Amino acid sequence: MARWQEGAAGRLAEAAMRLYVERGYEQTTVADIASEAGLTARTFFRHFADKREVLFAGSEFLRDAVVKSLAGVPATAEPMQAVAVALDATAELLGRDHRHSRLRQSVIMATAELRERELIKMATMAALMAEGLRERGVPARDAALAAESGAVVLRVAFEQWVEGPADADLRAVMRDTLARLTAVTGAGFS
Amino acid sequence: MARWQEGAAGRLAEAAMRLYVERGYEQTTVADIASEAGLTARTFFRHFADKREVLFAGSEFLRDAVVKSLAGVPATAEPMQAVAVALDATAELLGRDHRHSRLRQSVIMATAELRERELIKMATMAALMAEGLRERGVPARDAALAAESGAVVLRVAFEQWVEGPADADLRAVMRDTLARLTAVTGAGFS
Repeated sequence: MARWQEGAAGRLAEAAMRLYVERGYEQTTVADIASEAGLTARTFFRHFADKREVLFAGSEFLRDAVVKSLAGVPATAEPMQAVAVALDATAELLGRDHRHSRLRQSVIMATAELRERELIKMATMAALMAEGLRERGVPARDAALAAESGAVVLRVAFEQWVEGPADADLRAVMRDTLARLTAVTGAGFS
Repeated sequence: MARWQEGAAGRLAEAAMRLYVERGYEQTTVADIASEAGLTARTFFRHFADKREVLFAGSEFLRDAVVKSLAGVPATAEPMQAVAVALDATAELLGRDHRHSRLRQSVIMATAELRERELIKMATMAALMAEGLRERGVPARDAALAAESGAVVLRVAFEQWVEGPADADLRAVMRDTLARLTAVTGAGFS
């Protein structure tokens, strides 16, 4: 993700996104990306395992942010309140660059292989949140339900945000989506 | 899924599951499966695209059941009540054979490629439920939230059921998990 990367990695990520949008992901090679960035393929492979990983390079920052934010939540908080704090932390990172996020989303959604990789990324994030909740003493089933619902909110809110106006605040969209989840899951069952 | 298949397909599915559990999924070839079932590889490929699809052959029954059950829900029902009816329908199919489900789950969980395929299957199911809800007039965001929460309940309940006693009723476990989801997502936000 361009905004998190400096120097060669950042240039390669920008060049990759430009080509993925212009030519399509499948039609773009690592050699094309390196050439577009004015660098060599060897330099590319020093920063990224393959052309797919250019689109997922920010994942570890996101994971760190989730773990750190959960660790800072008071012990008395309800599981879903802890998840809400973790969502704020992801919004802080994911919500920085609307244009980049929008381009990335269009590339991901256009290719089955990338949609699958994104699914796995979200599942990993949910598993991490569930683990963080269990460490806080939340029973395993409640931890899974809260964490996976949180991942649903993240996905739905992010999609709404990238499709919406550039100046919208992702954190506010997430909080609003979380409130909506509570209303939807409660209706007819309270 | 053995119980849904008759004749050669059923024998191949049984043989495959036996070998996946005994030797491991990766160590088993289509030739092994055919031989174990007393059939030829050619017969195998008449029924399944590859050794992975043996484990996912029931998916279309599940999808049909979801679509049909949603179509039968009264128009006045809340989105999550409609999802609950769809979950009942999946429980009816998935809850038939505890031993088979337990073996299948152990094979899936042991192999990254199969876990990913299972993720995609669940995402497809959620997308189908969301589509069914939108057709009922539910706004897109509520439809996504209800359908994906339903998929979370399905996954968490199914995992609990396969790990639990063989005589437990999957439908009851799903209903109980759904009630728990409502409690967890509501706590601290009502």
